[in-house]
Amino acid sequence: MAAVLAGSAKFTFWGRSLTFARRVTVHRHYGPPCVVSAQRNSSSSSKMTVDLDSGTGIAVIRFHSPPVNSLSLDFLTEFASNMEKLELDKGCRGVVLTSALPKIFSAGLDITEMYGKSPEHCREFWKAVQEMWLKLYGSSMVTMAAINGSSPAGGCLMALSCDYRIMADNPRYSIGLNETQLGIVAPFWFKETMVNTVGHRVTELSLQLGLMYIAPDALKSGLVDQLVAEEMVVTTAMETLAKWFAVPDHARQITKSMMRKPTVDKLLSSREVDINNFVTFITKDSIQKSLKMYMESLRKKKA
Amino acid sequence: MAAVLAGSAKFTFWGRSLTFARRVTVHRHYGPPCVVSAQRNSSSSSKMTVDLDSGTGIAVIRFHSPPVNSLSLDFLTEFASNMEKLELDKGCRGVVLTSALPKIFSAGLDITEMYGKSPEHCREFWKAVQEMWLKLYGSSMVTMAAINGSSPAGGCLMALSCDYRIMADNPRYSIGLNETQLGIVAPFWFKETMVNTVGHRVTELSLQLGLMYIAPDALKSGLVDQLVAEEMVVTTAMETLAKWFAVPDHARQITKSMMRKPTVDKLLSSREVDINNFVTFITKDSIQKSLKMYMESLRKKKA
Amino acid sequence: MAAVLAGSAKFTFWGRSLTFARRVTVHRHYGPPCVVSAQRNSSSSSKMTVDLDSGTGIAVIRFHSPPVNSLSLDFLTEFASNMEKLELDKGCRGVVLTSALPKIFSAGLDITEMYGKSPEHCREFWKAVQEMWLKLYGSSMVTMAAINGSSPAGGCLMALSCDYRIMADNPRYSIGLNETQLGIVAPFWFKETMVNTVGHRVTELSLQLGLMYIAPDALKSGLVDQLVAEEMVVTTAMETLAKWFAVPDHARQITKSMMRKPTVDKLLSSREVDINNFVTFITKDSIQKSLKMYMESLRKKKA
Repeated sequence: MAAVLAGSAKFTFWGRSLTFARRVTVHRHYGPPCVVSAQRNSSSSSKMTVDLDSGTGIAVIRFHSPPVNSLSLDFLTEFASNMEKLELDKGCRGVVLTSALPKIFSAGLDITEMYGKSPEHCREFWKAVQEMWLKLYGSSMVTMAAINGSSPAGGCLMALSCDYRIMADNPRYSIGLNETQLGIVAPFWFKETMVNTVGHRVTELSLQLGLMYIAPDALKSGLVDQLVAEEMVVTTAMETLAKWFAVPDHARQITKSMMRKPTVDKLLSSREVDINNFVTFITKDSIQKSLKMYMESLRKKKA
Repeated sequence: MAAVLAGSAKFTFWGRSLTFARRVTVHRHYGPPCVVSAQRNSSSSSKMTVDLDSGTGIAVIRFHSPPVNSLSLDFLTEFASNMEKLELDKGCRGVVLTSALPKIFSAGLDITEMYGKSPEHCREFWKAVQEMWLKLYGSSMVTMAAINGSSPAGGCLMALSCDYRIMADNPRYSIGLNETQLGIVAPFWFKETMVNTVGHRVTELSLQLGLMYIAPDALKSGLVDQLVAEEMVVTTAMETLAKWFAVPDHARQITKSMMRKPTVDKLLSSREVDINNFVTFITKDSIQKSLKMYMESLRKKKA
Repeated sequence: MAAVLAGSAKFTFWGRSLTFARRVTVHRHYGPPCVVSAQRNSSSSSKMTVDLDSGTGIAVIRFHSPPVNSLSLDFLTEFASNMEKLELDKGCRGVVLTSALPKIFSAGLDITEMYGKSPEHCREFWKAVQEMWLKLYGSSMVTMAAINGSSPAGGCLMALSCDYRIMADNPRYSIGLNETQLGIVAPFWFKETMVNTVGHRVTELSLQLGLMYIAPDALKSGLVDQLVAEEMVVTTAMETLAKWFAVPDHARQITKSMMRKPTVDKLLSSREVDINNFVTFITKDSIQKSLKMYMESLRKKKA
């Protein structure tokens, strides 16, 4: 059935149009068939590699921004750009997010983008954080998090924004929205993404305490869907995608939009307010002191 | 206490009136005391039997529309009519829904009502689907699903719309909203009914993939409340009703309305839009092709 | 980090101000440093004792209103007053609620305040019930329920309104919103408090049937977070508070407000309507009869 319907590129149903409908008419070529962007070689500043297998329709995005895949402005911008390209590519039906670095999926938002920076920079940074989430949570493709390392704060958000989460069965890896531990606060759309995954109560407890869950507990609480041996995380994600591809794309996409559009729309209708709130909060003296202390504690930890 | 309060027929509380308050003043006789409608005998076109025991206050509706209790226009119309009669009958406090056919509770919406039909017919059909759900999800009676067979799509919706679900402990029977597998999409009120039962995450996963749950998994995921031996399904439903009847009707009804009215009101305030969306979608060439393919696959399966 | 930020008394973030921000400028002394109110000794009419340890920042409120800590108008007024004082006290960061009576946490709303009373009295009483909940559910302090006995109806609401619930591991103690069993109905904000804790389905089932959960089942359903030996309930609550205090107050408070403010705001915007609904309902002849029968059944039970 999927084959029969593959020609249908855009649907609206139940009064909902797809959040990010594929505009196939605007399809652009941006690389050889099997490697979307050969950025690994072409650009030393690239934060990730993107490999699209046009045979399977699966793109694998591997984060490669040492030491811990922090979500810097450059990282976020490159990620959003890649997602947009894949979204427009008829040959891509699903995306796997994973890390090319050992032990870490992503350490979350890059604190150096928020510490000692101008309000203008903070504004631009936060807009990029929003953009990353909008592109990922609202994607019409099937998105898989292959979590092969720890994934705090913004890293956890990226995982939660996928359709399915497979984590390395390693109790040394943990995941969670631990913002309060740093003296900062997850915004409402981080919160709603978590509530949509694990419910109100687990979210309330986790966000207040800034809880990190080790892999087995993450599975129990519903933060992740499946644990597999570390070397099997990406393979399992690709096998799982194959099962999702058995569902007709158009019906799955409309359904995904029905589930996620209300949450996406909340941010879309309040982006400016959300940015202003962030900039006002993060530029406070007390919060800047918090961030400084946190970075110093990280530095001592390393030494 | 129930006895004392039995005279109180209608309550409003907390600014909410009962969704389908019993209008006892409009009480009509529509059959002998113990058999609401003797349709089994009186009409060869009847799709179900309704047996009301005025001693216990329990009505059992047995679906009998071979081969698989498909929800045709006739079935839905007869069901809504029966629910309306029982709602108005002071002697009826609870309803058990079950199947008189082996292995199947209900196969869901009748595809032949949606394939090759005029927009006018599709419109009438969808209105009847809405009406079935409004009568069932909004019923002030205690409603029990005695699921003695498989229950995909619309059949699952009927079960989810009851107050309690007892399923035959048989792993060959499965239940779920599997619309996407057919290339179609569950509308928002199917979705909300499922979210209210199993939460947002299980719903998102189940609806995107069109998952069917075998009985033991349906229990684990919360799609059903209890598994019992197949021959005990209806008996257990009746015994369970007796426990529910121990709660004063008026307090239980107000509480049920408080839980369900917001969801019911969403459809009531958008019925026309919902019908238009359905008709536009289902009459698309690509969707008609999907339905044709699905029916052909069913035909081959049989042969 | 908490120490660094302790000076920051009020924050707004993400467009949300704290529900009950501490107005530290209005700080008043209302007792010696280690005992907030020496009400245990100073007033024979006092319904509870409040002990604040300024070293730990923990206040313990012990209900002492024999025989069953019913939530009378006096009890509710005193409780709200104590919460308000603690909220304003910079030295207090967390509160433990527990009972000084054996076998009972609180029996819930005092029926004698609702039976045979004037509409004016019912109105005043209900306002006090609202006030108790607003102060507790919206508190910026960390609130712990140390449930050392049974906790039906309004007693359960108090526990559900805390941040964390520790119950005595004793199957003779039970907890639940069992209003329907008495022929009355939990209002929407009781319902929402429960939905926020255990989800929509468990709430729908529990409220319709007026279910009481014995301690082990309360843990399974998520009504409470932890079971410990009866003599350890308060100690464990205080140890748990110490862990919560490790999170910077300002970040935790903003996060708590983000989770709870929508529910608090619903009541704040409809207090008068909610009071009118209660008074209209509770003064009905049929409901007064229900209450009378219930009180008589309690009297017989004792005798």
